[in-house]
Amino acid sequence: MAFADGPAVVPRDLRPGHPYYPPGVIIPNYAPNTTPLWLLFVYFGSAIGAFLAAAFFAARLIKPRFRSAFFSDKALFVWFTLCGGLHWFFEGYFIKNHATLASLQSVRAQLWKEYSLSDSRYLTSDPFMLCVEGLTVLVHGNLCFLTAITIVYSVGHPAGSSGLRHILQLVVSTLHLFGVLLYYGTLLFEESIHGTSHCRPEFLYRWVYFAGMNAPWVVVPVYAIYSSSRKICRVFSTVNRISIDPPDVGGPQTSGKKLQ
Amino acid sequence: MAFADGPAVVPRDLRPGHPYYPPGVIIPNYAPNTTPLWLLFVYFGSAIGAFLAAAFFAARLIKPRFRSAFFSDKALFVWFTLCGGLHWFFEGYFIKNHATLASLQSVRAQLWKEYSLSDSRYLTSDPFMLCVEGLTVLVHGNLCFLTAITIVYSVGHPAGSSGLRHILQLVVSTLHLFGVLLYYGTLLFEESIHGTSHCRPEFLYRWVYFAGMNAPWVVVPVYAIYSSSRKICRVFSTVNRISIDPPDVGGPQTSGKKLQ
Repeated sequence: MAFADGPAVVPRDLRPGHPYYPPGVIIPNYAPNTTPLWLLFVYFGSAIGAFLAAAFFAARLIKPRFRSAFFSDKALFVWFTLCGGLHWFFEGYFIKNHATLASLQSVRAQLWKEYSLSDSRYLTSDPFMLCVEGLTVLVHGNLCFLTAITIVYSVGHPAGSSGLRHILQLVVSTLHLFGVLLYYGTLLFEESIHGTSHCRPEFLYRWVYFAGMNAPWVVVPVYAIYSSSRKICRVFSTVNRISIDPPDVGGPQTSGKKLQ
Repeated sequence: MAFADGPAVVPRDLRPGHPYYPPGVIIPNYAPNTTPLWLLFVYFGSAIGAFLAAAFFAARLIKPRFRSAFFSDKALFVWFTLCGGLHWFFEGYFIKNHATLASLQSVRAQLWKEYSLSDSRYLTSDPFMLCVEGLTVLVHGNLCFLTAITIVYSVGHPAGSSGLRHILQLVVSTLHLFGVLLYYGTLLFEESIHGTSHCRPEFLYRWVYFAGMNAPWVVVPVYAIYSSSRKICRVFSTVNRISIDPPDVGGPQTSGKKLQ
């Protein structure tokens, strides 16, 4: 862009022309995406599909009986593997490249630039996003994979599963639920208090990308917390009943003694 | 403040002279504390002491055997009651009065103004603080009191406690731990990335107020998560052993059937 009475070249950083909200937000070195959106989604979908297929194959290799596991266990295995993959490889990419993300043209960078139309904080090295995403990669990512592994190993347990599986499921689902509430909340609070929005107002960005794409992290954690809580309560009530009417099963912990 | 060649009266909002960081941060209508610090601490300590004494009295009224409960259970009861009280009455006060906090002279407002020397985000209606504290009041506060109640009702359970107590303890401690990591993290990320700090640099504010006063929400949740996890694992392994070698205790769930 050149001006008759102005500088011949406007420094790239100062050029307007990026599509992000709020208008005027500084996105250094922004370069528009070069790959069509449908193709980005094909790449992304294929990568996720291949990753989940590999995980399922590995699960059956480790535990052949996983094939006959309950549908809910298989579904949660897929969920936690998918979350772990997204946390490590997609959000991890953001953490590694947050400072230059707007200028990059890799598939993941272009996907982030597309998603950022619904939340420009991903392109401005926002401290809250860096902090929450950093913890998500390091803590949630590892815990998700651990949870998926304990689901596989739980198949065939006499009590239906191990305690560790439900502890991890409870902890990581609590983290997911709280994280997404904070994520929604900070953007909406900023809108209502400071009157600025990092999300473009169009239906696609506000409702499909921002609200819709994060909604699974509300719905599935609520189910997973409910499911694990129900299981833990049933196991405790079983032991409570046994301890009232002590059975003779040999172990010192089960023969009517208080379990502390 | 008057200037020879300037306006006779500087609007109060624009006056410098507040002690908060980063220098230049706008704290509308700031009024310095009028009560000595030691007296604020006396009021605060007395309120907490009276509140905990009342809670202990109520617990023994509901469950006289609570007197002979394990020390660790009593300590966790105190912890969750204290947290619930702080979340409801101290952080709740912040949520209700965040916009005018800097100008108020109630005991709680003065305590917030003193603490804000280590984090001025409490006086600027920061969206992250409002969001995280709002959730803390509504979610953590209620869950803390529920956890304390289940600890009281667990005394005398044959298995040492109820499943619900450990589910709640696990969930609320996970929330506390994640919350404090985010709280520390956002301030430190902002320092390292944007070079601005909301915390005064003196030892008292940085290490006693900011680091020290929040450290219990790292240490105690780690212990509580460990303690509940250990208990849940033991109860699951008990049921697993019983299910392998089914005892005759009458209930269909305990007689060797898989618990789904």
